[in-house]
Amino acid sequence: MDSVFQDYFYPKSLCVVGASSKPKSLGYELTKSIKQFGYTGKVFLINPKSDEILGYKCYPTIESVKEKIDLAIIMVPKQFVEDSIKQLTNKGTRALILITAGFKETGKEGEQEEKRILELVKNSDARLVGPNCMGIINSLSEIKMNATFVAEEPRNGKMAFCSQSGAIGAAVLNSLRETDIRFSQFISVGNKADVTENDLLEFWEKDKNISVITYYLESFEAGEEFIKYFIDEKITKPVIILKGGKTSSGIKAASSHTGALGSSDKVVNAVLTQFGIIRANDLNDMFNTAKGFEDFPIPQGNRVAVVTNAGGPAILAVDTLESNNLSLADLTPETKAKLKEIVHPQGSVNNPVDLLPGGTAEQFKQVNEILVADQNVDAVISVFVEPIMVPAMPVIEGINEIKIDKPIFQVVMPLPEFWDKYRKESKTKRSLFRKPEDPAVVIGNMLKFKNNHRIKTDISLEKLNPLQ
Amino acid sequence: MDSVFQDYFYPKSLCVVGASSKPKSLGYELTKSIKQFGYTGKVFLINPKSDEILGYKCYPTIESVKEKIDLAIIMVPKQFVEDSIKQLTNKGTRALILITAGFKETGKEGEQEEKRILELVKNSDARLVGPNCMGIINSLSEIKMNATFVAEEPRNGKMAFCSQSGAIGAAVLNSLRETDIRFSQFISVGNKADVTENDLLEFWEKDKNISVITYYLESFEAGEEFIKYFIDEKITKPVIILKGGKTSSGIKAASSHTGALGSSDKVVNAVLTQFGIIRANDLNDMFNTAKGFEDFPIPQGNRVAVVTNAGGPAILAVDTLESNNLSLADLTPETKAKLKEIVHPQGSVNNPVDLLPGGTAEQFKQVNEILVADQNVDAVISVFVEPIMVPAMPVIEGINEIKIDKPIFQVVMPLPEFWDKYRKESKTKRSLFRKPEDPAVVIGNMLKFKNNHRIKTDISLEKLNPLQ
Repeated sequence: MDSVFQDYFYPKSLCVVGASSKPKSLGYELTKSIKQFGYTGKVFLINPKSDEILGYKCYPTIESVKEKIDLAIIMVPKQFVEDSIKQLTNKGTRALILITAGFKETGKEGEQEEKRILELVKNSDARLVGPNCMGIINSLSEIKMNATFVAEEPRNGKMAFCSQSGAIGAAVLNSLRETDIRFSQFISVGNKADVTENDLLEFWEKDKNISVITYYLESFEAGEEFIKYFIDEKITKPVIILKGGKTSSGIKAASSHTGALGSSDKVVNAVLTQFGIIRANDLNDMFNTAKGFEDFPIPQGNRVAVVTNAGGPAILAVDTLESNNLSLADLTPETKAKLKEIVHPQGSVNNPVDLLPGGTAEQFKQVNEILVADQNVDAVISVFVEPIMVPAMPVIEGINEIKIDKPIFQVVMPLPEFWDKYRKESKTKRSLFRKPEDPAVVIGNMLKFKNNHRIKTDISLEKLNPLQ
Repeated sequence: MDSVFQDYFYPKSLCVVGASSKPKSLGYELTKSIKQFGYTGKVFLINPKSDEILGYKCYPTIESVKEKIDLAIIMVPKQFVEDSIKQLTNKGTRALILITAGFKETGKEGEQEEKRILELVKNSDARLVGPNCMGIINSLSEIKMNATFVAEEPRNGKMAFCSQSGAIGAAVLNSLRETDIRFSQFISVGNKADVTENDLLEFWEKDKNISVITYYLESFEAGEEFIKYFIDEKITKPVIILKGGKTSSGIKAASSHTGALGSSDKVVNAVLTQFGIIRANDLNDMFNTAKGFEDFPIPQGNRVAVVTNAGGPAILAVDTLESNNLSLADLTPETKAKLKEIVHPQGSVNNPVDLLPGGTAEQFKQVNEILVADQNVDAVISVFVEPIMVPAMPVIEGINEIKIDKPIFQVVMPLPEFWDKYRKESKTKRSLFRKPEDPAVVIGNMLKFKNNHRIKTDISLEKLNPLQ
């Protein structure tokens, strides 16, 4: 795969143009992130005033680096940007990320400057990410690259995340210790002068380390092309989009971008739905859904069984089924008979199955096994509120270890110490959900993807055009 | 105020009937919670086999306690419950909480036993909370009572919370370290054999330590009476309800209760809305709204100004305005002129006001002051995504210190270390919000309350009856 995006996400060497020795400056913090996460490639820092920063050798100019540079992160002041790009493209570097801000987003003058830079890039075989962006991550153990300002250490997963907003990207990275989101690759695309969501869609579809693609977008840079990938059935992986600028106020706030996919949110919705592209309501729903695709088989239908040790949270879980087009499964008489042998007589063998607060790890495991074996059940939501007498870990791990082709989504409402323990001690490390309302959204979204990929569409680009 | 609920929430002495010396048993853990939170009253433990548990003296029987018992927590096995209640009512104890489960919730036989117990109570001047519940909390420094299984130490606030589900109550208590929810009083009401949400509504309306009342309910025990308090304009405090069993599947899961307020969720919604009772979508919305009422003045209208240092999160905040019946305020020319002197030329003085990532604590404070002074602005949402070069604490505290009669809701998306620091070091300790989507829900809910209390209703109980 000789894509330039191979250079972006799998660079053997990277160069920070504008690295700094001053703590709290962006040029220092980004270098620190690279160091801390343990990037496996070669690092060249360009800084004429320092010999060395954080143990990396500094070079006075780009030209003075004699070795090949796969990826360049440019964060020099605006007046030095053009010269840096010229030197890099002369050197044959194809993957450029321009962090520096102050271009199109600031008005007419900045827009002209952005055009000039783009011109430079177009005249070479390089590509440009940004400007006005915040970096790139590949968490794979062979790469271990965190070239962003946020020195968090993301756990490796199979998800790719592209954010048009640097702040949203940073906020997500800063929340990783609580949310347990796992990335494979992350990229902040800023003004999208050259590289857009479309380029990434194409690359990530082919990258075998990616199984689910997520976006925070405020506009579609070339919506028609984006959709064409789906019309042509080139995209087989699930794609989840959180779109900022849904309402007229929000669209005004996001300001208009050229070539955006329709200004009406209804149009965006209709088109995305048509092609099984999942629209998330918020960041929580987006990453929960991504966890669903990463960790669980796609359910074959919409019939859900719920098992719990606590009435209230199970009711909240059931309440969210309808609005996600799911239904409570009718358990077969055989299933109920088997459940009767396990469930406490004062509990319930109807759906939702109630094990009462005394429900043990063994009971939870057995009941989940019986439920997934029921032909009327497509997915299970297992809700565990940790009581004092039944520790959560064995319950959770027991269920995680069940080997089946139907998904079991676990909601855990544990004692405060649980999450740290799970992160450290879990063997399975399968994604858990924190709120009883979460799994229904995930199942509903997974089915939107599945149903679209089962039924072939007869939509052609011509038919779609009127929507634009 | 000689209400029996004074004995429940402000007891000078309490008795645990069925205290245990065995760690992990409910009778031990509840006693441990009492000890750990530092209850200020006298504690009597009833346990014939121990002399002392956790430093508290044990008594072999209730009768052997010679002093007055204000509140009794009963957690003995079912066969000893009736006898315990008899002894307590003979002694003149009025406030009884029956933790023990296995009554109405288990079927016909349990229902009969529950009736017998209720009979006993009705023949005395005592009241009964439960059975099948998980305890009571008053976090006021004069009381410091946590008589639940959950040994968390809630921070004191002005909110009261009543949960029909013990598990939901426990889950909320277990999440306190992350959610920063502050209680004044909490009670788990379980089967609601005697004491219901109505009794608590009446008591909390009068209790000056409570300013906002929240409920998790699965049924209204006597819905007509509940609404009558509002028809008669006896309730002046905001009331927020999360109702489990919204959909037909959810209602089925919650099972039917006698005297419930209509089985159709549309009816529940219509009636609650009519009386300005706030219906929360989930626990997050409920407690965020409670924080709104606790910490902020009620906005006078629906015109919202947004200020931010980051485009993306501001767009997500603006996107939630419409669905909560809010609008983006039109800032006056004077306001924009003043903002121009502060905001970076590449930022924006339109609503949402954008200070760019470099926006300082001083700029955030000044801009917020200008925005709340604008006659076209009823509320401000201030969104701060913490960049490396501008630490969050001074920004947050600076805004918290602004003295005004308009609310400023702060959304903070900080570096991972922030929350602990804020809990420890903040002088103001005003509630912050974590997601850009949160404040719009809060403002919308506060306005539902305000608008209802401004416009007198002409609904009479007769007119309401057909809804039941």
